[in-house]
Amino acid sequence: MGEVKVIGSTRSLFCTRIEWALKLKGVEYEYIEEDIRNKSPTLLKHNPIHKKVPVLLHDGESIAESLVILEYIDEVWTQNPLLPQDPYQRTISRFWAKFSDEKVLLGSFDACKAQGEEKQKAIDTAQESLAFIEKEIEGKKYFGGESIGYLDLAIGWIPLWIAVMEEVGEMKLLEAEKFPFLHKWSQIFMDLPPVKECLPAREALLEYFHASINYLRSLEANKQ
Amino acid sequence: MGEVKVIGSTRSLFCTRIEWALKLKGVEYEYIEEDIRNKSPTLLKHNPIHKKVPVLLHDGESIAESLVILEYIDEVWTQNPLLPQDPYQRTISRFWAKFSDEKVLLGSFDACKAQGEEKQKAIDTAQESLAFIEKEIEGKKYFGGESIGYLDLAIGWIPLWIAVMEEVGEMKLLEAEKFPFLHKWSQIFMDLPPVKECLPAREALLEYFHASINYLRSLEANKQ
Repeated sequence: MGEVKVIGSTRSLFCTRIEWALKLKGVEYEYIEEDIRNKSPTLLKHNPIHKKVPVLLHDGESIAESLVILEYIDEVWTQNPLLPQDPYQRTISRFWAKFSDEKVLLGSFDACKAQGEEKQKAIDTAQESLAFIEKEIEGKKYFGGESIGYLDLAIGWIPLWIAVMEEVGEMKLLEAEKFPFLHKWSQIFMDLPPVKECLPAREALLEYFHASINYLRSLEANKQ
Repeated sequence: MGEVKVIGSTRSLFCTRIEWALKLKGVEYEYIEEDIRNKSPTLLKHNPIHKKVPVLLHDGESIAESLVILEYIDEVWTQNPLLPQDPYQRTISRFWAKFSDEKVLLGSFDACKAQGEEKQKAIDTAQESLAFIEKEIEGKKYFGGESIGYLDLAIGWIPLWIAVMEEVGEMKLLEAEKFPFLHKWSQIFMDLPPVKECLPAREALLEYFHASINYLRSLEANKQ
C-alpha cells in the first residue's frame, strides 16, 4: 500500500489521533517529529497552505487536516472500520468530532487561559460543551457502541489534555461527579495499548501549556 | 426514502449548497424558511446545539452542519455522486471545502468589514486564499473534473456572495484578471438550472450584508 509517514508533534493533540488510527488499522508508518516553534522545510513543503501538523504522507501524496486524514485512513485501509456503516451514524460521528474540535477544545483552552472574574464564566461555557459529549457517551462503552471508532479517536485528546489544562489553568473542568460516563470512557480509552503507545509525556505538555498560556496572557495584558 | 425537509434561510450561503445537492440528486424536499434574526421553536428543537441553519430533516432525524449534511446526502442518495470515488481525490475535496469555509469566507467577510488602513491588508489576505482556489480550478471545468460535485457546491457561494461583499465593502476581491479560471467556473456554475433555482435575490442579500456590516462596525467603534 506504499510508504506511510506522519509529520507530527508530541505537543499537538491533532497528531496523536492519526497515530492511533494507523495503529488500530495495523499500518506501519514512520513518524517524523516536527518542532512547531521552528518549522522545517519538510513541513512547509508538504503543507504549504496551513503549515501545520499533522501531515500524512502516502504514496507520494501529502494530506493535511486531522479529521480529513482520519477519513482518508478509513477509506484506504478498510480493516477495522473507524466510521460506522450507517449514514446517519456516520453523520453523528462527524458532527461531534467537529463540535469537539471547535467548541470543547477552544472552550477548554479559553477556560485555562481566563483569569479574574472571567474565569468562572469560561469554565461554565466549557462544561456546557462537555455536557453534550457526556450525553453522547452515556450508557455506551465507546462512542460508536461496542468497538472503538472515529469519534473515540477524535475525542481522545480529552483525558490527557484536559487534565493538563486543568493543572495549568488551576481549575477543574472534567469533574467526576458531573461527567461520570466520560470518566469511565476515559479510563477504558487510555488503557488501550495503541492509545498508551502514542501519548506524549505529561511533563512536556505541562511545560508547553504553561509557556503558551503565559505568552497569550502577556499579549492580552499589553493590549489593555 | 422518507420525508425530506430543509430548514434554511435565503440569507445563509450554507443553506443553498444543501438545496443544490438535493436538486442534483433529484430528491424532493420541503423548504422551510427560518428567520435567523428571530429563531423559531422548530429550529431550536431540531438544532439545539448550534441553533443554526441549515438543518436537514430526514426520516425523523435532524442533521446539522452543512458539509456534514452534504456527505450524508451523498451517502443516502447514491445517484449522481458528489464526492469522487478515489480516496485521495475525496480528501482533496474535503480539504478545500473546509479551507473555503474557514479561510476564504472569513477572509472575504473581514475584507468587506475592514476600513481605513486595515482595508488593503484584509483584501490582500482574502485574495491570497482565493489564489489557492484559483489554482485548484485551473484548466478544469468543475473542481472534480468533467461533472459537478461536492467541492463545486461547497465553493458555490463565491460568485454571488463575494459580489455582494464587494459592493457592500466598496472593494474588488475577485478581479477577472487575477482569477480568470474562477471567473470562467463561476459563469458555468451559475448557469446550471439547479443552481439558478436556489439563489436568493441579490437585493435582499445586499440589504442584509449592509445591516450586518454596519452593526459589526458600530460594535467595534464602541469598543475603542
